[in-house]
Amino acid sequence: MTAKTKIQPRAARGFRDRRSDELLLASDMAAKIGEIYQLWGFEPLEQPLVEYTECLGKFLPDKERPNEGVFSFQDDDGQWLSLRYDLTAPLSRFYAENSATLPKPFRSFRNGWVFRNEKAKAGRFRQFLQFDADTVGTASPAADAELCMLGVETLRKLGIKDGDFVIRVNNRKIIDGLIANLSVAVDEEQKLNIMRTMDKLDKVGMEGVEALLGDGRLDESGDFIPGAKLPKSDRDYICLFLATTAPSNEDTIASMKRLMKGSERGLEGVAELAMMQEIFATNGYTPKEIRIDASIVRGLEYYTGAIFEAELTFKVRNQDGEIVQFGSVGGGGRYDGLVSRFTDEPVPATGFSVGLSRLMAALRYLQTDEPLPFYKAPVVILMLDSSKEYMAKYQDFVSFLREEGIPAEIYLGSGGLKAQMKYADKRGAPCVMIYGAKEKENGVVAIKDLKQGREISKTITSNEEWLKNNAAQQEVPVTDWLSTVLKIVRS
Amino acid sequence: MTAKTKIQPRAARGFRDRRSDELLLASDMAAKIGEIYQLWGFEPLEQPLVEYTECLGKFLPDKERPNEGVFSFQDDDGQWLSLRYDLTAPLSRFYAENSATLPKPFRSFRNGWVFRNEKAKAGRFRQFLQFDADTVGTASPAADAELCMLGVETLRKLGIKDGDFVIRVNNRKIIDGLIANLSVAVDEEQKLNIMRTMDKLDKVGMEGVEALLGDGRLDESGDFIPGAKLPKSDRDYICLFLATTAPSNEDTIASMKRLMKGSERGLEGVAELAMMQEIFATNGYTPKEIRIDASIVRGLEYYTGAIFEAELTFKVRNQDGEIVQFGSVGGGGRYDGLVSRFTDEPVPATGFSVGLSRLMAALRYLQTDEPLPFYKAPVVILMLDSSKEYMAKYQDFVSFLREEGIPAEIYLGSGGLKAQMKYADKRGAPCVMIYGAKEKENGVVAIKDLKQGREISKTITSNEEWLKNNAAQQEVPVTDWLSTVLKIVRS
Repeated sequence: MTAKTKIQPRAARGFRDRRSDELLLASDMAAKIGEIYQLWGFEPLEQPLVEYTECLGKFLPDKERPNEGVFSFQDDDGQWLSLRYDLTAPLSRFYAENSATLPKPFRSFRNGWVFRNEKAKAGRFRQFLQFDADTVGTASPAADAELCMLGVETLRKLGIKDGDFVIRVNNRKIIDGLIANLSVAVDEEQKLNIMRTMDKLDKVGMEGVEALLGDGRLDESGDFIPGAKLPKSDRDYICLFLATTAPSNEDTIASMKRLMKGSERGLEGVAELAMMQEIFATNGYTPKEIRIDASIVRGLEYYTGAIFEAELTFKVRNQDGEIVQFGSVGGGGRYDGLVSRFTDEPVPATGFSVGLSRLMAALRYLQTDEPLPFYKAPVVILMLDSSKEYMAKYQDFVSFLREEGIPAEIYLGSGGLKAQMKYADKRGAPCVMIYGAKEKENGVVAIKDLKQGREISKTITSNEEWLKNNAAQQEVPVTDWLSTVLKIVRS
Repeated sequence: MTAKTKIQPRAARGFRDRRSDELLLASDMAAKIGEIYQLWGFEPLEQPLVEYTECLGKFLPDKERPNEGVFSFQDDDGQWLSLRYDLTAPLSRFYAENSATLPKPFRSFRNGWVFRNEKAKAGRFRQFLQFDADTVGTASPAADAELCMLGVETLRKLGIKDGDFVIRVNNRKIIDGLIANLSVAVDEEQKLNIMRTMDKLDKVGMEGVEALLGDGRLDESGDFIPGAKLPKSDRDYICLFLATTAPSNEDTIASMKRLMKGSERGLEGVAELAMMQEIFATNGYTPKEIRIDASIVRGLEYYTGAIFEAELTFKVRNQDGEIVQFGSVGGGGRYDGLVSRFTDEPVPATGFSVGLSRLMAALRYLQTDEPLPFYKAPVVILMLDSSKEYMAKYQDFVSFLREEGIPAEIYLGSGGLKAQMKYADKRGAPCVMIYGAKEKENGVVAIKDLKQGREISKTITSNEEWLKNNAAQQEVPVTDWLSTVLKIVRS
């Protein structure tokens, strides 16, 4: 085989490898979230990554574009299989399949990879992690309230401080009531447009919303965004509704109730919010943690009742250099149509999904009290002599260190001292240990502190200064090697 | 939509859901193995589940059967994608892609799902877990020895006792030497046949091997298995080789060396084993833990040097009721051709793969000192009264319990007392707490011990006895509820 025929090694488009720190943080977070979910009575569940396409629903592959949105492929027997695109569709299959034996309501949490067959785009991944908790089989707003409170406890457990987050809550029935109470009839597309506009309150302010409900407005980039062309009275009504959000949840609910007059569905939504609020209050959650918020609409997904969004409220600089709120790290709501593709029996359900990647970014930014878990690179024992006597000594070094819980390894490659030092550096080793004929004769071990070396190299500017600096390497009596290494590693 | 058009909810063929106990045990094991791998200087790495088919190698989809062996599908741009079928092929892609920046040798471990497009067969899964550790970039037998020792420490860490396991070691170069030293020339297929026969020593004994190397033999089911038809001298030579396995690894190596006379490659393999044995001895590993074994061939995979197999040696009853050794739970070896499809530069590598599912079965069987992790079902607080006052009390119950680290939940469904009790039972709750108007009046909480109830129900045979038994339910003063529940849960 010539070099020309060789294959170009590359991760597939939209997929990526994850290493060390990122990996350890993700599994630490998942363990913490899993722990608290279990305390709250949610049962761990893991489902296959592949499902029958028809069981996932929504996306049915057509002959022309079988991979539209989801990755699909045909089984030997002609049935279509798909990689799951979320954790809710497989749950509904599981619930329908095992309905006879499952406790009801059924609380579960699932954590795993989902796939989207996205178009190529920088930073757009086609495999990502979701962490979901769902309660299936009860229509009680108490189940929705529980998920909101669980959201608070989850964020707290991860080290995010009170005041840095809020769970914002609304109800789709109220949005439906709002739309029904307009003076004009709107179709599904117009309804979505109005919801999207309400969702922008944070960004464009009330005036902006007013304009977008009417004739439209110029956005910051100078593009003209056409409006929903609602009459003035309806624009006022929607803006009044958005203005109901008050510091007191009880006040917000009272205002909403007044505005929902005439819509049975809207009033039902308000009553559900009131029940949830009572539970929040009973459990000591204030609007600082859980806030009823009229502007929450939860995008385009098909919720049927309570909706909620977990938001981190501290400020960060965005890509354009602007100071903005960190924003959403999860959300969910009630979706009572869940199992309807399998059975005629209505199955109420509510769920909460956490965005692990967003949360990881937040934790890195916040520097929580507890230090984040990080990959502990090993102490590297250089191999100066592969004879039995020296190898036994090197093995002693690694054994003692591992017993202290410190990762350690003997260099296994074939390089000389320089290559070995370079290796230890690439490895991120805290220090290297050097023990050869000279050290043996003098009864010492040479220990080079690479941590200190890395610190120093940040401040040293000239080459001479660098060469002069030997502070990072020391020789210690052979009896003192362990204490010396421990000091370096734990500093 | 009528009932007729509804979809049948079912997991896809060869895929399955995993719940509670199984899930918790798997993640506990993975955490323990990951911990020890890190102590030994192996770095965690996670790779996507989807790769370019050509980067995985081996399986290139053809137009007629694109899913032969692997699940494959075509991307928008015409490139073929596949679900990974092992964790080694993706590692080779990663190493080749990042070769410039990786420390060398590169030690990593990976833990995750792999997929095989298997034909339908009971108990044959198409998605399963692998846990691999690999050292890429060094040809040193010290790297192979390290993986064997790590294998021992991994099994110990999981609670498997010395004497219940052994890592058996051989070298493919020795097998090659053995084949080269035969008096007749054998082709690749005959070679595989001979290797498979050697592998059967455990099952059919030396006489059986002799027969299979010659004219063949009747197996237990009465089928005649045709033999390799080797001349007597070659059969004797191979049997002599298999008989080299001695209680002392040094003895085994010395015998192997004598038999490899005339084969440079065979002698190279023996020298590598000798180097590994020296390291084992230096580190205090005896043949009880790591045994050089002439019968190890590692099936059909393309190893190029050291090969090893982790075996659990305790006896279990198999499906046919026979008493057999538990058998292999992992293995690996040196495969120096790893990165050859990406680059002409030779990249030596060695790896060890652990079979998590097999190990889980073993741990369940062994009942290790430390109890296995299990899912702790929640204490269920029955909901007798949804008014504010009672709800606050119920919330108190769950809050206190959760603070003690005990999963707890308030019943959220709409059922009456009977439905709620049934729920708690299905849930596997250790106990239920009952607090209604009567209990409030008397200043008590009723607590029903379901654990005890379950125990009792195993011994009670008559219906009357069952009805008479009220031991499992007690009323305690409201001040004593926590201590009572703690006692039940922790008993």
